[in-house]
Amino acid sequence: MDTKDSFRHFIYTDWILIENQFDPSQLQVRETIFTIGNGYVGTRGSFEESYPHALPATFIQGIYDDVPVVYTELANCPDWLQLTITIEGERFRLDQGEILAYDRQLDLRQGILHRAVRWRSPSNQTIDINFTRFASLADPHVLGQRCQLKAIDFDGIVEIQASVNGYPENQGFNHWEGLDQGKIDQGFWLQSRTRNSRIEIGLAAKISLSGTQALCQVNTTPGYPTWSASFYLKAQNLVTVDKIVTVFTSQDVKSPVLAAKNKLTQLPDYSTLLKENEATWQQVWQDSDIVIEGDSTAAFAVRYNLFQLLIAAPRHNDQVSIPAKTLSGFGYHGHIFWDTEIFILPFFIFTQPTLARNLLSYRYHTLPGARRKATHYGYTGAMFAWESAVTGDEVTPRWSLPRDFYGEDVRIWCRDREIHISADIAYAVWHYWQATEDDQWMQQQGAEIILDTAIFWQSRVEFNTQSQCYEIRGVIGADEYHELVHNNSFTNRMVQWHLEKAVLIYDWLQDNFPEQASQLASKLQITPTDINKWRDIIHKIYFPIHENDELIEQFAGFFQLKDINLTEYEPRQRSMQMILGVEGINKWQVLKQPDVLMLLYLMRQSGDFPYNQNTLTANWDYYAPRTDITYGSSLAPSIHAILAADLGKSKLAYQHFLQAALVDLEDKRGNTQDGIHGASAGGIWQTVVFGFGGIKIRNNQPVAHPHLPPNWTRLKFKLHWRGQWHEFDLYPTPPQVPHPVVSSPQIQGTIFDLDGVLTDTAEYHYQAWQRLADEEGIPFNRQANEALRGVSRRASLMLIIGNRRYSDAEIEEMMERKNQYYVELIKNISSQDLLPGAVSLLDQLRQAQIKIAIGSGSKNARTVIERLGIADKVDAIADGYSVQKPKPAPDLFLFAAQQLGLAPSLCVVFEDATAGIAAGLAAGMWTVGLGPGERVGAAHVVLPNLAGIKWVDIRAKLTRYSR
Amino acid sequence: MDTKDSFRHFIYTDWILIENQFDPSQLQVRETIFTIGNGYVGTRGSFEESYPHALPATFIQGIYDDVPVVYTELANCPDWLQLTITIEGERFRLDQGEILAYDRQLDLRQGILHRAVRWRSPSNQTIDINFTRFASLADPHVLGQRCQLKAIDFDGIVEIQASVNGYPENQGFNHWEGLDQGKIDQGFWLQSRTRNSRIEIGLAAKISLSGTQALCQVNTTPGYPTWSASFYLKAQNLVTVDKIVTVFTSQDVKSPVLAAKNKLTQLPDYSTLLKENEATWQQVWQDSDIVIEGDSTAAFAVRYNLFQLLIAAPRHNDQVSIPAKTLSGFGYHGHIFWDTEIFILPFFIFTQPTLARNLLSYRYHTLPGARRKATHYGYTGAMFAWESAVTGDEVTPRWSLPRDFYGEDVRIWCRDREIHISADIAYAVWHYWQATEDDQWMQQQGAEIILDTAIFWQSRVEFNTQSQCYEIRGVIGADEYHELVHNNSFTNRMVQWHLEKAVLIYDWLQDNFPEQASQLASKLQITPTDINKWRDIIHKIYFPIHENDELIEQFAGFFQLKDINLTEYEPRQRSMQMILGVEGINKWQVLKQPDVLMLLYLMRQSGDFPYNQNTLTANWDYYAPRTDITYGSSLAPSIHAILAADLGKSKLAYQHFLQAALVDLEDKRGNTQDGIHGASAGGIWQTVVFGFGGIKIRNNQPVAHPHLPPNWTRLKFKLHWRGQWHEFDLYPTPPQVPHPVVSSPQIQGTIFDLDGVLTDTAEYHYQAWQRLADEEGIPFNRQANEALRGVSRRASLMLIIGNRRYSDAEIEEMMERKNQYYVELIKNISSQDLLPGAVSLLDQLRQAQIKIAIGSGSKNARTVIERLGIADKVDAIADGYSVQKPKPAPDLFLFAAQQLGLAPSLCVVFEDATAGIAAGLAAGMWTVGLGPGERVGAAHVVLPNLAGIKWVDIRAKLTRYSR
Repeated sequence: MDTKDSFRHFIYTDWILIENQFDPSQLQVRETIFTIGNGYVGTRGSFEESYPHALPATFIQGIYDDVPVVYTELANCPDWLQLTITIEGERFRLDQGEILAYDRQLDLRQGILHRAVRWRSPSNQTIDINFTRFASLADPHVLGQRCQLKAIDFDGIVEIQASVNGYPENQGFNHWEGLDQGKIDQGFWLQSRTRNSRIEIGLAAKISLSGTQALCQVNTTPGYPTWSASFYLKAQNLVTVDKIVTVFTSQDVKSPVLAAKNKLTQLPDYSTLLKENEATWQQVWQDSDIVIEGDSTAAFAVRYNLFQLLIAAPRHNDQVSIPAKTLSGFGYHGHIFWDTEIFILPFFIFTQPTLARNLLSYRYHTLPGARRKATHYGYTGAMFAWESAVTGDEVTPRWSLPRDFYGEDVRIWCRDREIHISADIAYAVWHYWQATEDDQWMQQQGAEIILDTAIFWQSRVEFNTQSQCYEIRGVIGADEYHELVHNNSFTNRMVQWHLEKAVLIYDWLQDNFPEQASQLASKLQITPTDINKWRDIIHKIYFPIHENDELIEQFAGFFQLKDINLTEYEPRQRSMQMILGVEGINKWQVLKQPDVLMLLYLMRQSGDFPYNQNTLTANWDYYAPRTDITYGSSLAPSIHAILAADLGKSKLAYQHFLQAALVDLEDKRGNTQDGIHGASAGGIWQTVVFGFGGIKIRNNQPVAHPHLPPNWTRLKFKLHWRGQWHEFDLYPTPPQVPHPVVSSPQIQGTIFDLDGVLTDTAEYHYQAWQRLADEEGIPFNRQANEALRGVSRRASLMLIIGNRRYSDAEIEEMMERKNQYYVELIKNISSQDLLPGAVSLLDQLRQAQIKIAIGSGSKNARTVIERLGIADKVDAIADGYSVQKPKPAPDLFLFAAQQLGLAPSLCVVFEDATAGIAAGLAAGMWTVGLGPGERVGAAHVVLPNLAGIKWVDIRAKLTRYSR
Repeated sequence: MDTKDSFRHFIYTDWILIENQFDPSQLQVRETIFTIGNGYVGTRGSFEESYPHALPATFIQGIYDDVPVVYTELANCPDWLQLTITIEGERFRLDQGEILAYDRQLDLRQGILHRAVRWRSPSNQTIDINFTRFASLADPHVLGQRCQLKAIDFDGIVEIQASVNGYPENQGFNHWEGLDQGKIDQGFWLQSRTRNSRIEIGLAAKISLSGTQALCQVNTTPGYPTWSASFYLKAQNLVTVDKIVTVFTSQDVKSPVLAAKNKLTQLPDYSTLLKENEATWQQVWQDSDIVIEGDSTAAFAVRYNLFQLLIAAPRHNDQVSIPAKTLSGFGYHGHIFWDTEIFILPFFIFTQPTLARNLLSYRYHTLPGARRKATHYGYTGAMFAWESAVTGDEVTPRWSLPRDFYGEDVRIWCRDREIHISADIAYAVWHYWQATEDDQWMQQQGAEIILDTAIFWQSRVEFNTQSQCYEIRGVIGADEYHELVHNNSFTNRMVQWHLEKAVLIYDWLQDNFPEQASQLASKLQITPTDINKWRDIIHKIYFPIHENDELIEQFAGFFQLKDINLTEYEPRQRSMQMILGVEGINKWQVLKQPDVLMLLYLMRQSGDFPYNQNTLTANWDYYAPRTDITYGSSLAPSIHAILAADLGKSKLAYQHFLQAALVDLEDKRGNTQDGIHGASAGGIWQTVVFGFGGIKIRNNQPVAHPHLPPNWTRLKFKLHWRGQWHEFDLYPTPPQVPHPVVSSPQIQGTIFDLDGVLTDTAEYHYQAWQRLADEEGIPFNRQANEALRGVSRRASLMLIIGNRRYSDAEIEEMMERKNQYYVELIKNISSQDLLPGAVSLLDQLRQAQIKIAIGSGSKNARTVIERLGIADKVDAIADGYSVQKPKPAPDLFLFAAQQLGLAPSLCVVFEDATAGIAAGLAAGMWTVGLGPGERVGAAHVVLPNLAGIKWVDIRAKLTRYSR
């Protein structure tokens, strides 16, 4: 799709989206974008007069009906917008005649959609037609529509038909069977029922015409009741038709038609209804708005995303939730995923907590379905559905079926394996409670969710007697590119976290609501033995790092998969799954969406293990480049944006933010016609508040650590925390004037280790050692390899062989062999293997006239330096041939300083290994440690890595240190 | 379903089906039953005013559209019948007010559906409303509808709306997108297009009203154009509304709407159209009718089934065929199966050969799809689809998907394995050609079908080097209860037959149309090597009997499956598959439908191998009791009826005939709402003509060997054979007056063998031997067991052990062991184990004062006789203890005669074994051999078995013999 071409007709103002040209090729995408609603009903932005290939839809929360393959779907409800205008016998339609002017506006402040068209009919009559529609936020059952006509250059007969179309369709399927219909004063009513779920709907409509005399009548074509008016329109006269529609279902009241007819008689006129709607919207925005200044696209796009969430959230119903595509499209059939709890919910928790509670109560009401699912799969407790609808039973389709005669079916495994949803819901319950202190709800509903899902985990984990660990095997983690993995870190840690909270909740309930505690324990059959079992699982669940490690393996064996360089696949317009195949992609280290990083993000809010800056850095560096951020999951960009902001990667954070914020407005993924990306919209709020606003909960209240994007001059929002509103009005920190670049007298040279500092040949060393170890039948893996960081070749080999007996000759041969493998591997090294920030720092140093040496224990250092293309930036090289004693002996660095002609005290060593820092210190040099404090904490300055590092900053820090 | 209750409202006259009461519970079933059509269009018998849960449908031949899971389906077309009548503001509907009189009639002579209703509205106005509809057989594009109103007891305002409903649905799915619509003089038109296949439809309607003045207008509600009239109806005045609809699709003409509008202007009035329709029907019935006298139910039901076939057969189109459920319902989505060629086609071949040709040409036109299927599966040539639609590509669904959340998917294997369809089509092509001598079509189309499918077989068979046989592995045969079998006899023999004919056709083509022969050989890449290969396959294909054997094993290993006694499951309302499970039933000797018997039936027409009377008897006796004839396949009863008629089982034949003939009229299988059982309807014609009429082709022309059912006094029909009509007017053979039962002086005693004569303990002997053989590790099977028939225990054992060495003691022990097993097995013998006819014969003998002895070599004979409950009918017993020398020595029978006190020449021996007959003859007795001539041909009288045997007949035959 040519984005430039498609979206040039959009103008973003603070509150209004303006489309100033009609583009038939974008028809279905724009229908999604111009969706309106009020949390009860959502109506796509289809045209009143219809258009070929349009996908008009009105969805009502909770109105689902059966459908093959995907079990149930939101039923498209009778279309209340249908309006046919005939001018002198010619029907107004945009694909005939001529569009002289076109202007469509979605006003987010009031949830109103306007359209103004100047149209010239095929026989040359020109007319202005204005349409307005809204779904009242003041009364969920009220819909308003207005049409105004003004003849420009003719007098003539005009006929208007205003209908409710009882034949709506879900891509061809009509879920409704007509029961009855009839006429009322100035209007009509329609009664229909869903075919299988047997939900009744009643609509009533009243139409009034002003500005002229007309012959009006009502016709009750089966399933298509129609009010029509014929009149003689005089040039420049304005005729207004107001249509007010009321709608109820049998989930609201016993007799929907009666309720619709009754309400209709009690309503004020169109203008009054519009004012009531506006007033209600104003209240909502008071709490939920985000003000951004300095970036009008961001300012509008953020509001647009929040608007889409607000019109999808049930305000008067806690038996329903927000579908993945909200109420705006047919995608995912109205099914509800973790998208709601993890991505969307925080916005509501912090700005509309009563709506957040509705959404969570939905999960409480669907516990029976979750229990049936657990029973079906042979477990106990409650196992939430990956895709959920009314009952909470699992509705994820089993198959993606081919349309062509001989295509293969693709099995979808999420229903069976993507089990983290149960922990995600517990996570949401916990955080809702933390933010609201809503003890009442927690003891009545939340506790049961957390505890019954804990029981599920208790039955789901398996104890491995060999490793003495609890394991969770056969899952799909957050990253859906890998469909059958064991001990997924995201899942395992979320389960552990979940059980930790379950124990707390169980105790809290006993302490504060003993009666409820005992009732619940009896209902769920929880005994103290169970709680002990949970403690045991918490203690012994498999998780592939310890507190002071960094890189977390996504699941057991992930690091053994084929590695990938995604840049080699650019440019592309398809997901990596489409490129590598559904089966094939399982074999690669490529992620559809963050998994370990997602875990870190979720643990970030309260600083839970394993979230910390070092872990974040290490895992970001590893996983971010391996994530299919453009065409993988639309859930990814907002999370990457937040973490990038945390890491100070402002520009990248903003890029990801825009990718998410415009996903629908600019149809970034080519599927906006299927509906709004609800999770992405929720992620946007989190990006702005948690990422750019840097909000963390510290000392029991939200505190901002802002990292505003470059152009933003102001960021303002409100958060509700434990009964109080906290207002944040953030401005960028005043720009830092860079110090003049002057060489510090204390420092005239730098000595860089190679592996892990300038490049990542550590990986090639690992691969070479692994090959050697495999050939020798010696157990060895990435974890074992960690111990070799900064250790010489011989010492490494000694560590690997342990107490196995080898002759000296054999040891020599093995060293040689490993080196051959390594040399083979590094033949492919290029400047692409330089670590982020390396070249920039070297260039800064040369500009600052600081000398540069390499101090690497490797005998291949020269080769590597040449292949990296930095030989001309380097003044001296100390390598494996230069000295006898390896690091941590100071010899190598002293040799390097000598080569540079500088005293050790004038040199800074850049090292990533404990032994290297020790060597630098032993040599009497300054040291910069790259990596976690546990490893390089002895250095004068510790940095995560070189990315974005400025020499002046290092210099300043060292200068400060030396004072 | 309570049949009595449901069908008491039906009256069958010769030509008219009368329903005299409205039964809402039967709504959808009756919609199917009252379907009308003309071979272009079929319209279900839904009510004009609609009714809740109705399934109105109009299908047009060839109008398919995409749908998930089943790929494509016949699209329900816009409903041309919609008519709304409002009386004084109250809408006429059968579920409100009161039905004072109701009479619906389907007139088969003219294809007209009438309905007369006297209705009292809720506010007590009484009105007569008559409806008529027809689809003109004279012009496929013309549909007629009439509605007549007469107020009985009131004067008042009546409003009629006559519409075309552009929102038809396939169980909720609307395949049409509205393109345009408009008004014409006294009517309107509608233009729609299928969503995916993009077939356009155009309908035009003209409505005329007579009998009163009315205000008429046309309204073009989107997709629902409506003509309406309001008038003041005076009591006893008759008002008539005639609606004539024309319909075209883009498969007929380029501009369907234009064609529909044009035709409409050229049509005469309703009454003239009706007359033209009637005249055309008269011509059709002249050739296709069957007259039955003496049985009014049969007379009507047969015509009804033929009518349903006639209205489904394409008359002007050879690109389409008859779907399994004709054009009368949604079942099987309009897909085309072997039902058409094997069950339906003979009716057309012999009475409407041009329609038969259309149906076969459909297969010619779908050869490209069949080739794609072959290619997809890795074969060459043409592999026809098990389920076929427009393109001939395979459209059998892969899955039967559960509707409940946790149900299991069931894989449907027919697309992959039910490959006999290709031979079935070749079979149909061949028989069409035989009957019509249509050489032109054969050389242009038929030959290509037969040859390209032969090429497929050539690539599909596998040569087993060990057995030196061609095998066909991994198939589903005609019997679909067994889903993965090897060397299915039906398939293997049909393939062999197919290749035999392919060789003939190839030669015929070369001899008669050398140019076409060479073109085709070049197109299909057939070389003389291929023909030789076919001959080799014909010669060496695996088939489990030889010319002079009888019982054919359904597939390799069938006899090893668990045996079943279906009577033990009675009464039941479900198929055996539902009882034993889709997986489970594979393990049992139970058939969904005839398989070996189907093969015998198909080979019967031309007396091809293995069809002969003995084989038929043996296989009938074995397979018929193991066939789920009531709830298995609706394809079964007609075939069983024909074979039962062949076997002289008149009563049973008639039972099966009725089961098939009334399958829809009395909804025998509970699924008539899904549509007419087309194959059953075709089978009915075959039952009447081939079964009861006993038509066989002898000396190149059809010859009758009638077996009329008991009440039938006349059976009359016509057959077209090689250019000539043959009329058959058959009457029952005059009833045979039974001879007085007088004992013949020559015969005073009977001696019955037990096994295989009175009971089937042969099976238990077999099982006992099998167990012994298994324990001893000696190869043994049913086939080997055949050699033991009538052989003593010791001799049997000797045959089994062959040249293996055993001591005498071991042999004694084995005999004892086998006997123990046998005694265990026969403990369960009961009177149910008596063979058919046995008791009846014994009783006749006692009545005729003929003495009865048992002459069995078994040492368990007394036990068996007691368990069978016939001890009191027997005068003497000679068993394994009676004499030393076993049969064929005469000793045992001589002993028996002695016990009876009769000379041997006064005794008749009943035996099923060669050795037994020999023994009887050696004893100087009369002998009756039961079984095939090869086995018991030495006997004086040979019978298949005792079923239905009359002593007087045997006596007469023996008397005649002795003269």
